[in-house]
Amino acid sequence: MSVPFRQHLRLIWGLCALAVLVLLNPALCEEGMWLPHSLPDQLMAEMQALGLELGKAEIFNAGGTGIANAVVGLGATGSFVSPEGLILTNHHVAYGAVQRISTSDRNYIEEGFLARSRDEEVPAHGYRAYILLSSEDVTARVLSALEPAMSPLERYGVVEKATKEIVRDAEEGRDVYCEVNEFYGGSKYLLDTFLQLTDVRVVYVPSRSIGEYGGDTDNWMWPRHTGDFSFLRAYIGSDGKPAQFSKDNIPYRPTSYLKVSKEGLHDGEFAMIIGYPRRTHRYLTSYGLAYKEDFDYPERIRLYRRMLEILYRESEADLEAAVRVAGRVKGINNRLKNNLGMLEGFENFDLVKRQVEREKVFKAGLEADPQMMDKYGDLLDGFRSLHGARLGHAKPDLILEYLVGRGTLLSQAMLLYKWSLEKEKNDMARHPDFMDREVPDLKTKLRIFQMGFHERSDREILRMFINEILALPPGQRIEGISGVFTGAAGGELADAVDSFLDRLYSDTRLDEAGERMSMFGLSHEDLLAENDAFIGLAAMLYDDNEARLERDRSFGGAMTLLMPRWIEARAAQAGRTLYPDANGTMRLNYGVVKGYSPREDVYYAPLSTLTGVAEKHTGIAPFDCPERLLELAGLPEHGKYDDPALGDVPVDILTTHDSTGGNSGSPVINGKGELVGCLFDGNYEAMTSDFLFMDDLTRSISVDIRYVLFIADRVDGARNVLEELGVE
Amino acid sequence: MSVPFRQHLRLIWGLCALAVLVLLNPALCEEGMWLPHSLPDQLMAEMQALGLELGKAEIFNAGGTGIANAVVGLGATGSFVSPEGLILTNHHVAYGAVQRISTSDRNYIEEGFLARSRDEEVPAHGYRAYILLSSEDVTARVLSALEPAMSPLERYGVVEKATKEIVRDAEEGRDVYCEVNEFYGGSKYLLDTFLQLTDVRVVYVPSRSIGEYGGDTDNWMWPRHTGDFSFLRAYIGSDGKPAQFSKDNIPYRPTSYLKVSKEGLHDGEFAMIIGYPRRTHRYLTSYGLAYKEDFDYPERIRLYRRMLEILYRESEADLEAAVRVAGRVKGINNRLKNNLGMLEGFENFDLVKRQVEREKVFKAGLEADPQMMDKYGDLLDGFRSLHGARLGHAKPDLILEYLVGRGTLLSQAMLLYKWSLEKEKNDMARHPDFMDREVPDLKTKLRIFQMGFHERSDREILRMFINEILALPPGQRIEGISGVFTGAAGGELADAVDSFLDRLYSDTRLDEAGERMSMFGLSHEDLLAENDAFIGLAAMLYDDNEARLERDRSFGGAMTLLMPRWIEARAAQAGRTLYPDANGTMRLNYGVVKGYSPREDVYYAPLSTLTGVAEKHTGIAPFDCPERLLELAGLPEHGKYDDPALGDVPVDILTTHDSTGGNSGSPVINGKGELVGCLFDGNYEAMTSDFLFMDDLTRSISVDIRYVLFIADRVDGARNVLEELGVE
Repeated sequence: MSVPFRQHLRLIWGLCALAVLVLLNPALCEEGMWLPHSLPDQLMAEMQALGLELGKAEIFNAGGTGIANAVVGLGATGSFVSPEGLILTNHHVAYGAVQRISTSDRNYIEEGFLARSRDEEVPAHGYRAYILLSSEDVTARVLSALEPAMSPLERYGVVEKATKEIVRDAEEGRDVYCEVNEFYGGSKYLLDTFLQLTDVRVVYVPSRSIGEYGGDTDNWMWPRHTGDFSFLRAYIGSDGKPAQFSKDNIPYRPTSYLKVSKEGLHDGEFAMIIGYPRRTHRYLTSYGLAYKEDFDYPERIRLYRRMLEILYRESEADLEAAVRVAGRVKGINNRLKNNLGMLEGFENFDLVKRQVEREKVFKAGLEADPQMMDKYGDLLDGFRSLHGARLGHAKPDLILEYLVGRGTLLSQAMLLYKWSLEKEKNDMARHPDFMDREVPDLKTKLRIFQMGFHERSDREILRMFINEILALPPGQRIEGISGVFTGAAGGELADAVDSFLDRLYSDTRLDEAGERMSMFGLSHEDLLAENDAFIGLAAMLYDDNEARLERDRSFGGAMTLLMPRWIEARAAQAGRTLYPDANGTMRLNYGVVKGYSPREDVYYAPLSTLTGVAEKHTGIAPFDCPERLLELAGLPEHGKYDDPALGDVPVDILTTHDSTGGNSGSPVINGKGELVGCLFDGNYEAMTSDFLFMDDLTRSISVDIRYVLFIADRVDGARNVLEELGVE
Repeated sequence: MSVPFRQHLRLIWGLCALAVLVLLNPALCEEGMWLPHSLPDQLMAEMQALGLELGKAEIFNAGGTGIANAVVGLGATGSFVSPEGLILTNHHVAYGAVQRISTSDRNYIEEGFLARSRDEEVPAHGYRAYILLSSEDVTARVLSALEPAMSPLERYGVVEKATKEIVRDAEEGRDVYCEVNEFYGGSKYLLDTFLQLTDVRVVYVPSRSIGEYGGDTDNWMWPRHTGDFSFLRAYIGSDGKPAQFSKDNIPYRPTSYLKVSKEGLHDGEFAMIIGYPRRTHRYLTSYGLAYKEDFDYPERIRLYRRMLEILYRESEADLEAAVRVAGRVKGINNRLKNNLGMLEGFENFDLVKRQVEREKVFKAGLEADPQMMDKYGDLLDGFRSLHGARLGHAKPDLILEYLVGRGTLLSQAMLLYKWSLEKEKNDMARHPDFMDREVPDLKTKLRIFQMGFHERSDREILRMFINEILALPPGQRIEGISGVFTGAAGGELADAVDSFLDRLYSDTRLDEAGERMSMFGLSHEDLLAENDAFIGLAAMLYDDNEARLERDRSFGGAMTLLMPRWIEARAAQAGRTLYPDANGTMRLNYGVVKGYSPREDVYYAPLSTLTGVAEKHTGIAPFDCPERLLELAGLPEHGKYDDPALGDVPVDILTTHDSTGGNSGSPVINGKGELVGCLFDGNYEAMTSDFLFMDDLTRSISVDIRYVLFIADRVDGARNVLEELGVE
């Protein structure tokens, strides 16, 4: 806990430097997630003023040689860091893969994993690497079939059909993966074309006590001391085409990879991040925000807590269960903490009230301008009635969403049942998730499910959701479950649920991967003829679930009528172009290394060190620093890994970047286009920034590349990795 | 939570200023609790260099007109702030008095209390105000009767006898209170003479939601937003002599009082604190520290937790209980939090290890100097064996200490029983706590006990201690309890304890104040003839308790043989005079307003504001800011109460002062001798500073006088108080 004088001084001068920076750059504005292939000139000018030495073409180009061309979609984000397809991403991005290769004998999560040669690299089951080849505006074609008289549900269907056709045409005869995404709530559509690599392998993951140091306690927190990094590698068939795992596959040679700068990043310095942020909601109305605060978060939090209670209980009782459900517990915990933080942020920052104020200003603007009033006067009422109607079904829909879709045996049955119906349709007529192109993905889901499956936990979670459904008021019945238990109550009802569960788990073969795979091949009729109890339950729930999905689609269709006009109106009032919300497509954002003040009298400096890692050590997880690292922390110097200004090895960095879920693993890139860090988290105050970015509080957290290299070298002796990075 | 830009800038420039200050004053050393009546010249020079404009005589003088002459001992500390005996101290210092005047109808703790005229001021039962008149060196007389061959217990007795005689002689024929205190572990003794005022009244206490804002959650924490102040008044008989409460008494007119400066205190500024710090242990050896860490704190923590469990349970069940035991709960909670923090600090800062290192250096120094070795070579072994022997009885002794001495009915019985024996002795032969001069105090204890007494809680705590005693191993029996239940076990034993408690509480009249007072008048024989069950228990425990006290005295006597030589040896090695440990006598200490870094990357600025108070508001205690204060926080300015640099009303201040328990309520005094704040806490990191002062981490927390004035004026409309302070 003691703070060396040196560090104190460093902090003070850092703050002085910061003060100067703040004064010289009063208009610094890091909000915004921009499309790397179409960066506004103004943004380029801002970045160049701050230290960017690259032009647009060096950021992204059709030839694939820009820095953004080195960025890899992994669900989250990674980046190529060698000509041989080596990918740097987060420890927590690789977590699932490492969990799946762990057994009760070898716990690679705890120990870490290092392949000393290509031969030792092991498959990351279910992982894909997506490399963006191009992005094309297809708005005209998507919107061409829309007609004013269409219902919201029809509109949704027409847009879905158009995008499917565009994707089909784009993929036709090419070994690529395509998707069409909606921007600005539906006024712009881009067709993104990706190379999709299906053979991804684990190369090097540090031990949990480094990669997850601080664990859930430190999650979203600063100061941070987590070495949240890992290395994967993408492979390709020997014929140069994407291929499933095979020993004959060869490392993929990317058209672009990032060079590592051993300089790392320093206080006040400029940097960019490029990644795949999933979703922001910066244009939500007060009605949409109120829905989140009053219903959505509180209800999700309640359900997460009930699920965790069960999983903790089962994990305590049984080591096998603990290993099996570890990934799931981690996932739910992350979402719970996120939702709790969101709710707290909504309250602390008065998000709804702020938005109400903005809407008052908006209305006043309309009233002052008859033309604007004419064009946009209906908007806010439209949003209000849309969200009001949604609330009527929100609770049963949310329960159903978790019941059928969260990694339980029932979700496997739902998948098989729906597939048996969809497969009978023409490919283009299917739900997008069940088109031919998704078949390998569906199969993977069926296969990898086994690794996280633990029957008692699965059963207890199902029981919990059944009880949730049985407690719903009459107007919100979910017939497929409620119908089964009509008439029963009290202890009798509990017994009936028990027998129902007994029957389900004894009369199913879905708990075996082979059986699921073979059922995947069956026709609808043959699947039913299997008389599998879980398939039977899926059949009973099918209509309920389809009705839920239809309500969602209808809501989505109605939103496409309002949202583009709302953003258009706001842009018109603001007199400037607005950036589109994150939607899972590649984005670029710039920022600087910068501390912040979370509350009165408390100031956070932006760079943590190895000394800080050791200071947090208690010997008890998640603060159980490896012995070797403690020894290193005790040394007076660490050669090339010490930052001259810090006089210590840098660990994590606080920057002003605008990021969200999906950005995990994003490369942090300096003005020369070199890799200097790997983003892995936002700060606690950044959570509500998905709805409202706050210049003074929103921060991203990255691991400094020098800590990555230091750990690889001095702790894990990963010479082969360092050599491949070209830093040996 | 949002941090205005203004504040951010303020923080930054404050840090720049701090950086400069740190660089210009590398040798700034705020450690040390000095005697205000004999300040070393070097200290005066240091303080004058930093901004002190007073000389020694203006700090303390025999005429009673120095600033230290305005400081009042209250168990904790207060200071005279008007010519009419008005005393400023902490909210938590007045807490007990306010609790005692509260009923279930009028909860003055919650509401606050304001006497708008002298008539409305109410007695603070059991409170005394001590005004130091002089301090005289009596070392020669105390030590004159010691002989080398004496046993430690004999030594203890001889010193005790000498100090009693000195006190008797000093008080003879004068209306003063005297005490002799030991310094440097027994090489120096000072006779302090006090005026003792026994009529203290409550004048003004803000509501709990201001005076205790942040409650236990924020206790010891920074940033802090507590208005921890209150006003009392000392009264004296109309004949000018100290007197018990009477309507005829008149306000005491102090020879010195502090003038309030409306300027408050600013970042980096010099200030002094003067108060009555109770106890520090800066010269403890590694053996003494290990005793604390390995036994004393863990065991006390365990007992506090068991007591709190009981008191919480009883408070929940019964509002009357909650009101009765509130003060006790608060007291135990404070000690628990303190002990937990101490233990954590011992571990975090490796106190034992650090001291072991120092002792290694000490030994090396001895080995290099035969003369020193000859003189001090036996010391460390002496300490080691002393602490080792102590551990053999530590557990039963600690349990007995709590059993007989912590505000239970049994403690009342023990007092009466011992008094009945002591009263038969010549005054000078008695235990110091039972000499004639203590009789009024003893009577007060017997009387005010009633206000915090709740029978069920008392009984359950007694049961808990009985069970603790019955669980002790055979070698540590406490005969007075163990003997009662010999042979019983299991359910039978539990029943026996139950019947024992039934008998105790039904066959006693000690639960009535009048009965206790009349028993106080009885001879030993007559007291026994009362056949009171609790007196009977006291009789049974008497020998056990006397044996415990004898062990303590013997340990103390042995320490007086080692400690003075140990401090002498360390001073000789250091080549400078060392300050004496705090021992409840008046001390002066200087410091500056200064933030600190509690851990890597976190920096605390030293001044909190009204905006921060409102930011912490949740509406739920202890963060339930009064509506009126919230309104005020929302105003853009607050006239004369706004600090120009902060642009807001200052609330609490962080300073580098060296303080400990007993310093609560100490005036914070600027270089001109004016009152600028009122100290009320240390920071979390300061707790272990009783053992090891850390320049970079140890801080004191005070309320800025401007917040006191602001609350009195704008929230409570205490015009009469403000007028008396001369600030209207």
